[in-house]
Formats: sequence, structure tokens, C-alpha cells
Amino acid sequence: MENSRMGQAGAARNWNRQQENRAERLARARQALGNRLAGKVVGAGDIAELLHQVIEPGDRVCLEGNNQKQADFLGKALAGLDPARVHDLHLLLSVLSLPEHLDVFENGIGARLDFSFSGPQAARLARLAGAGKLNIGAIHTYLELFGRYFVDLTPRIALVAAEAADRHGNLYTGPNTEDTPAIAEATAFKGGIVIAQVNEIVDTLPRVDIPADWVGFVVQSPKPYYIEPLFTRDPAQISEIQVLMAMMAIKGIYAEYAVQRLNHGIGFDTAAIELLLPTYGLDLGLKGKIATHWALNPHPALIPAIEAGFVESVHSFGSELGMENYIRARPDIFFVGPDGSMRSNRAFCQAAGHYACDMFIGSTLQIDLQGNSSTATLGRISGFGGAPNMGSDARGRRHASPAWLKAGRQAREGRATIPRGQKLVVQMVETFREHMAPAFVEELDAWKLAEQTGMAIPPVMIYGDDVTHILTEEGIANLLLCRTSEEREQAIRGVAGYTPVGMGRDRRMVENLRDRGIVQRPEDLGIDKRLATRDLLAAKNMKDIVRASGGLYDPPKRFRNW
Amino acid sequence: MENSRMGQAGAARNWNRQQENRAERLARARQALGNRLAGKVVGAGDIAELLHQVIEPGDRVCLEGNNQKQADFLGKALAGLDPARVHDLHLLLSVLSLPEHLDVFENGIGARLDFSFSGPQAARLARLAGAGKLNIGAIHTYLELFGRYFVDLTPRIALVAAEAADRHGNLYTGPNTEDTPAIAEATAFKGGIVIAQVNEIVDTLPRVDIPADWVGFVVQSPKPYYIEPLFTRDPAQISEIQVLMAMMAIKGIYAEYAVQRLNHGIGFDTAAIELLLPTYGLDLGLKGKIATHWALNPHPALIPAIEAGFVESVHSFGSELGMENYIRARPDIFFVGPDGSMRSNRAFCQAAGHYACDMFIGSTLQIDLQGNSSTATLGRISGFGGAPNMGSDARGRRHASPAWLKAGRQAREGRATIPRGQKLVVQMVETFREHMAPAFVEELDAWKLAEQTGMAIPPVMIYGDDVTHILTEEGIANLLLCRTSEEREQAIRGVAGYTPVGMGRDRRMVENLRDRGIVQRPEDLGIDKRLATRDLLAAKNMKDIVRASGGLYDPPKRFRNW
Repeated sequence: MENSRMGQAGAARNWNRQQENRAERLARARQALGNRLAGKVVGAGDIAELLHQVIEPGDRVCLEGNNQKQADFLGKALAGLDPARVHDLHLLLSVLSLPEHLDVFENGIGARLDFSFSGPQAARLARLAGAGKLNIGAIHTYLELFGRYFVDLTPRIALVAAEAADRHGNLYTGPNTEDTPAIAEATAFKGGIVIAQVNEIVDTLPRVDIPADWVGFVVQSPKPYYIEPLFTRDPAQISEIQVLMAMMAIKGIYAEYAVQRLNHGIGFDTAAIELLLPTYGLDLGLKGKIATHWALNPHPALIPAIEAGFVESVHSFGSELGMENYIRARPDIFFVGPDGSMRSNRAFCQAAGHYACDMFIGSTLQIDLQGNSSTATLGRISGFGGAPNMGSDARGRRHASPAWLKAGRQAREGRATIPRGQKLVVQMVETFREHMAPAFVEELDAWKLAEQTGMAIPPVMIYGDDVTHILTEEGIANLLLCRTSEEREQAIRGVAGYTPVGMGRDRRMVENLRDRGIVQRPEDLGIDKRLATRDLLAAKNMKDIVRASGGLYDPPKRFRNW
Repeated sequence: MENSRMGQAGAARNWNRQQENRAERLARARQALGNRLAGKVVGAGDIAELLHQVIEPGDRVCLEGNNQKQADFLGKALAGLDPARVHDLHLLLSVLSLPEHLDVFENGIGARLDFSFSGPQAARLARLAGAGKLNIGAIHTYLELFGRYFVDLTPRIALVAAEAADRHGNLYTGPNTEDTPAIAEATAFKGGIVIAQVNEIVDTLPRVDIPADWVGFVVQSPKPYYIEPLFTRDPAQISEIQVLMAMMAIKGIYAEYAVQRLNHGIGFDTAAIELLLPTYGLDLGLKGKIATHWALNPHPALIPAIEAGFVESVHSFGSELGMENYIRARPDIFFVGPDGSMRSNRAFCQAAGHYACDMFIGSTLQIDLQGNSSTATLGRISGFGGAPNMGSDARGRRHASPAWLKAGRQAREGRATIPRGQKLVVQMVETFREHMAPAFVEELDAWKLAEQTGMAIPPVMIYGDDVTHILTEEGIANLLLCRTSEEREQAIRGVAGYTPVGMGRDRRMVENLRDRGIVQRPEDLGIDKRLATRDLLAAKNMKDIVRASGGLYDPPKRFRNW
């Protein structure tokens, strides 16, 4: 009975619609472009025609845009298409950061959006969503979005960026490999079409990053793809408060847990730590004991630590402008190909950040009394990028390390539960951020944002039960050691300084937590605050970093302030 | 002061040792093989010579071996090397399953091992470890091990397997792409050498899966690589108890939570579910509502559900022997290349299983009263493969789905905590496994195994606080709804049948849990046990599956029992 039911269903169906439809699109493109199409190579002037032919209304279109490189030429072309012919697209984007990304919706080409991070476009995104110009599917972490490309958000069209292509369509991504392999693989192997903008078309590539079989078309863009030096921080802007916090991080957390494998995000707080490793860290005898293996973009601020021999290995999500020659000269540290340039890979580096790192340290805009943190604020839909992936306990992790075991022991001491390790997740914030907005709040803005925009749950970057330490200029709160939600709340209040949350502390209870080592002040850690000066920074400005690199680091123009 | 300290350290150091050492190894191989080396192509008879030249004592060597395909020719060659020349290797293996994998240690070539799963070699592995023949670094989940390849376990040498190579060294992996991309990328971009055994060397590949730039040498093996049809289950062996459990799973969990995106592991329990979708599932009106998107190997048992139109998409970790023609004829369902054959990818499929699936359902050998489960038993060091990665709450996940939100609501109802979703993690076990060993125990064998082998913590496959449901022939325990550890314990006892754990239940409390829907019997779910017969299976034997596939599925010989 059952077999006949099924046999019929199967026989009646065309199981090859995706590939047939792909062939139709390719045929339309060949027809329209005629002999202007040289194999897979399309002229820049023909890009609108190509996109009109290969994109169909309602398509899922992945536009490569991330923290660093941008398929900006293809993005602009997409935004400029005729909405009568191409509309209701479902856009997939790691990072929505260029104006053209939102022009796609403003101009009626796109209708739905799934993404991870929006950065500078967060306010405009919120306005457009509020005006009904687009429907947001969900906010993701990067690896989560890549995972969905293979399950229920597989792209029909991928618009990616590479350094160069050869005439067959092989792609060289160079150091900014980033998201391209994940996007291209999901698209090419499910009947989709990959279109790559490249800076140049050459006879022989330095190496092949994406095989030609996966690529439908390549187009040389009139200008090289846009790239943002997002991970460059000028040491001149690091404050002495940040130096003090970096000292606490190094002595109170990195050394305390012997953290060897870690990730650092963007920001001056962690840049200060990087610049203190070869000075303060060296003086504490920590060389070779902490911060040896990194999942991290090639931060210029890490150069002094690398030169001092602190760092054994760095694998990167993406590259950083100006670091090319330095990376090429330090192949023992970075992942470089036989051609000498780096291969980054956001998917693998996020997997490494999730599973192979003992610590994530990052910053946030708001922390509540449970330790939940979010960068979501009213009127801005910003997303969280990779932070939720790396700033959460990797519960599927099964290999042990001293740092992981110690964190797990502290969390479980005295509890009737099976022993396991835990990832260190550190939130490092000054108690007041710019414009005297307190970093500690009774309720996250995320609640109101969720209400306003109809999200199912408030957009939290890192959940309180994943946070192990909160570090402010006032001290460190070790949440692993808290045994009740009241202790947790008072530990958080106990480092919240002069914010209303900090002023609301129960002083006796906070002193009790301090006696138990749950709240630690600089003096409890044996840190002399008077030594927390900029003199401790291994590089005090951009010129110092260039000097530390032996002249190999070549900062982007905007950072050349000497 | 600081800059001078560092400048000196940096200047004195050779930063290019890995690439220089790689060049030395390649030069030695060229020297030794002379004109027997044709570009990158090595003769099978020269393999020992090649390995002796390119491997150095103490090297980290990744040998591709996983659930399915095995670089068995290279593994045998490695085990047969001269231990006076090659010794103290640190072996990295996804799955240690062939005798030669352990011969490497027995013969004094290998000294240290990091791996994910050992399967049939688990007992011998325990004996060798006990005899001091090898030192186990750690047991991992697959994606975790891949992550470490980019951080602190980067291979110097990778020995991989592919279908074919061309004379340049480009590799075609065909449907069994599996771990090769992750291994090759980590090795090739950190000064390592990738050596591939291939079934044939051809002029033109069907497609390029691994670019030649990443590959050091290719060797045509005398026999095609070994491959295990691990995911094939003969429906003839499915019992009526398993049919009943599958009915409970479909009605009590899949339908209850509207689970659309999911993973199934190996086993008859989940094969029964697959075979009930187009019969029982169809009768319940669930077509298109559940089980539409899968992260899963191409299980033959899923064919009837695919033919019935239940399934929209399947992305796979690896392929399955005999499914090649079926997959080729169903490109709308599977991820296939323009050449018509599948590209699997364990790394991306594990990322999808972690982040893009709402449910993991699997089996285990033992469950304790907290819900911790493990397949580790005394005298066997087996590992857990991908289960910990997929069978744990993905705390970094930020996109919502109805299933995820409902599980999260149930876990948090009445608790003062910020709302979030949760992954469904289902353990499906009969209360007694073979030889009448109870599946429910007061204490996991993992405790004693950890003690015996000096592990830092007991090897748990899935932690109790990640498990949401336990399903046995007696019923379903919904642990999400339990509010105390006592309730949890009684819910587990309440489905543990006639095992000592089950007999130890507090009957009144279990009845109370049943009233609250925490424990559900088949009759509570409206399931008539009398209907739980093999008649419900959409295919009752291998021949039925072949018929359902329209003759496209070609089972391996050992399954051809008609």
C-alpha cells in the first residue's frame, strides 16, 4: 500500500528543476550578451544585463559583504536593477554595511533580509524595516548563517568578491578569503550561480582559492573592491583607564587561568591588552604561558607581541589592510599559502573560535543584572556578528585544557553535577560609555527594541549564564563563583562603579563577595594603579607599530598621522 | 624601552622555518625519487620512500579516516615505515577505525593521538593506551577537531583520499568529500604537505574539489580507497517496539514542536522514523509540516520519504555507498555539482547540524539519573563523533523558529530569566539493550573509565542539561518541563521500564508528572499500540527500498539478501 502511494508521487515529479532552471538562466545570459561574453568573463558594462538575465523575482541572493571586503560593484549593480524585472529578492548578507546594501530594499529590488551584522547602517535598517520596506528574517551569528546556507537558506545567486580570476573562472581571493568559500560552495552545489567581481583578470593566478567549476561568471570591476581596515586601532587613543583594565585582564584572568588559546575582537580595550603583553606580561613572566594561539584577524596592535615571541600561531577570519607584507614575512605565525599571501576563512576561524579557544573577551554597550549583554539599542538593528558564537559556552566541546577545566571547576564546586569544563567569556567595559551612558542597566534596551520591531525574543548578544567575568575599571566580578542569582546581581553591581546599578549595591554583601574572591579590586590582584600609565604600552602610536614591524606594516593613509 | 626589547627578539629570529623546512622535505623527496617522480605524481611502489623522506620524527600527521572513506593505502604505508627513521608521530584522526590506524602505534611509529571516534577499534585502543603504547591527547567532536587544526593542532603532513587526481594535482573527491577540504586547507596554508591517494589519475576531472596548489603529491593506490556503508539499515531488522517508538517520536515530538530542520544519526530507531514518515506521518497530515530540511548522510531509509515529497533538502557529512545514482537523479534534494555527483562536507554539515537544525535525535548506551548519557563503557575508548556538537544546545544561535521558541518557552516558563530558544535534544533508547544490559544506570561507566585511563573528567556524550526528551518504549519524558532535579530524576525513572532505575521510581510522583504532561505514555499521545506493527514501515526490507527508488538505489552486496 505505502509503496504505491509513494511510487506515484515520485514518478510524477521533476526532480531536476533547480539545474534545469539554472541552465535556462545561463542560456538567457548567453543569448543576451552574445559574443560580448568571453567564456565566463563578462564586461563591467554588461553587468546589469547579466543580472537581469540570471536573477528571477523572489530569488534568494547572497551578496558578499562582511567586516572587511565588499562585493561593492555587484552590490551597486544589484541596487540599480529594474524593479519591474527583478523584485522581491530575499537578500542574505553577513554584514550589511554599505549604503547600496539598503538601496537594494529602498529601490524595491529586495524584500526580505537575513543577516548577521549591520554596523553603520543599523539606524537606516531600523527605519526601512519600520517603514515596511523590508522584512527581516532573523539576525544570526556568522557561522549560524553559513550553516543555514546548507539547510534552509541556500542561495540561488551568490555575488562575491575576489582579488583576481583567470580566464577559466578560477578565483584568487588572496588574504581576504573570508566568507567566499562558504558562500560559493553552498550556491554552486545546489543549482545556483556564483558571480564574482575581481580586481583583475590574469593568465596565471598566484594560487587557486575557488575552483572555476564553482563559478558561473567573473567580471572585472572598474575599481578594486572596497575594503575596510576595521581592526586597526591607533595606540595613541588608548587611555590610562584602559591600561589599568588591561593589567587586570592579564594578571587576573589570562594568568590566573593560563589562557593560551583565545580570540580578541575589535576595540581599544583588547588592543591595550595586546600592547601590554610584551611589557607587563613579560615582566610577570608570562611569555609562552599565555596568549600563544589565536583565532583573530591580523591586528596591527599584536605586532609587538609577535615580535617579542609571545605568539605562536594566528588563524584569521579575514585580513587587515596594510598587514600584507608583515604577514608575508612572518609565515611561521600566520596561515599563508605557498604563494606567500594569507588565506583567511571566516567559517573555519569561527569554528576555531567556538571550539578551540579557551576564552572570548569582548565589549558591549549594556549589561543587565543577570549579566545579559547587548549592543542593541533603540532605533538601531545592528546584529552581533561573531560574538554570540565565540562568547558562549561551547557545550559540544570535549577536549580539556587547564583554563577550561579550572573555569568548569569554579562553576560547579559544591554542586551535585557531573564535572565538565567551561569556556571563559569575559565582558570588558568601562562603567560609563560615551555621553555618560551607563554600561550597566536594570533592563536592556533590547526588550523595547524587540517590542517595537516585533522580534520573537529580545536580541541579546551574550546571555548572562554564558558570561564568566565582567571587568571594569573598578575590578573583576567572577560570576563562575556566584551560587545564587542574588550573589550574581551583587557581584555585577560591585563592579558597576558610579552607575545607578553600581550605586544600588548592598555594600556589605559586595565586601563579603570581595572576601571570597568573587569581586576583585586592582589592589586585591596586587596591581599598583600608579603604574597604569601609557608608558606600559609597547607601542604608543601608529609610528611605533610600524617601527616594531621593522617597516613591514604599511598603515592605511587615514592612520598615518605622523 | 619596550620597542628595543622587542625589536631585538624579532630581528634575531627566523620567521620562515616552516616553509623552509617544507622546501627541504620536498627537495629530499625529489632527490630520493629522481625521475620516478612525475611532477606531483608518485608511483604506488614509491610510497614508503616518499613518506620516509617527507615525514620527520615528532611530526603532527593527519590521516584521513572517517565514518566512510579511508586513506587506507596511505595508512598501511605509514604503519609499515621504519620506526628507526620515523617515530614519535602525533596522529590526528577523525575516526580511528581500521587495524592499520592502531598498527601505527603498535609498530612504534606513532606516540600520541587526538581523535573523535574509534568505533570498532575502541577495545584495542584502550589496551594499547593501557600498555603505554600511545598517549591520548583528547577525544573531540568532529568540528572541534577541525577547529583545532587551525589553532594548536595544525598538521605538518596530511594523508588524504580522493576519487581522482589530474596530473597537476587537482583532486576530485566525488560524493565523499567529507573531511578532505578542512584537512587540506589547514595543512597547505601552514607550511605543511598534503599527500593524496586517489583511485585514478585522469586527464580531466569531472570537477575540482581541492585545487592543485594545496596538494604536494598524489599517488594512485593499487585498490580504490576503503569505504564503509555505515548509514545503511535493513528495514527487515526493525522491530515492532521500534515502530512504536517511532510513532511516539513523530506524534509526540516532531509534530508537537513542528520540527522542520533536523539531523538523524545511525541506527534502527531513527531509520524506523524515516520509514514511518510517508505512512504514519502522512496519515497525521504532517507532510510539508515536519522533517523538510535535513543535515544527514544520504540514508537509504529516507528514500520513501523523499519519493513521497516529504523532504525538501538534504546536506550531507559524507555519502553512502550505493546511493550515487539515486542522488544524481534527485539533484533538487541533495547538494550536487554541475557534474551531477554530490559534494558532501563534514565541517559545513556539522556547522549546519549545530546551528541550523532545531532537533538532534540519537541513541546511547547509558543514561544516568541527571540525564547524562555516554557510549563510553569499561575497556573501550570510543569517542562520540558528531553527537556532542549536534546534541547540545547551540547557545550562540540567534535566529528563531517555532520549534526552538517552544522548547525555550517550556524550559523557562515561570522562571525569572530572559526569554530564549533552545535546541531539542532527544535520546531514544529501549530500556534494555542487547544482553539485557539496562540503558538506565545510577552511575555511568564513564566515571570508572575516566579513573582507569586518567582522563580529566568522565567522557560524557550528551550532558543532562542539554537533553530535552528521553524516549523509550514506555513513553516520553519531557525534561524541559521539569523544575527540580527531583522531578527530573523521577521523569527519567518514569520511562526507564523494568530496569532497576525504572523500578526505583516514586509511583505517585511519576503519576503526578504524567498528569502534568511531563511523562507521556503512548495512550496519552492517542497512539493505539495495536497499530504499531511492521505494516507501517514504508519499506519492509532492502528490496522495498530499491523499488521505492525506482531501481536507482544500488545496495552494497552484503545488503542484497533477496
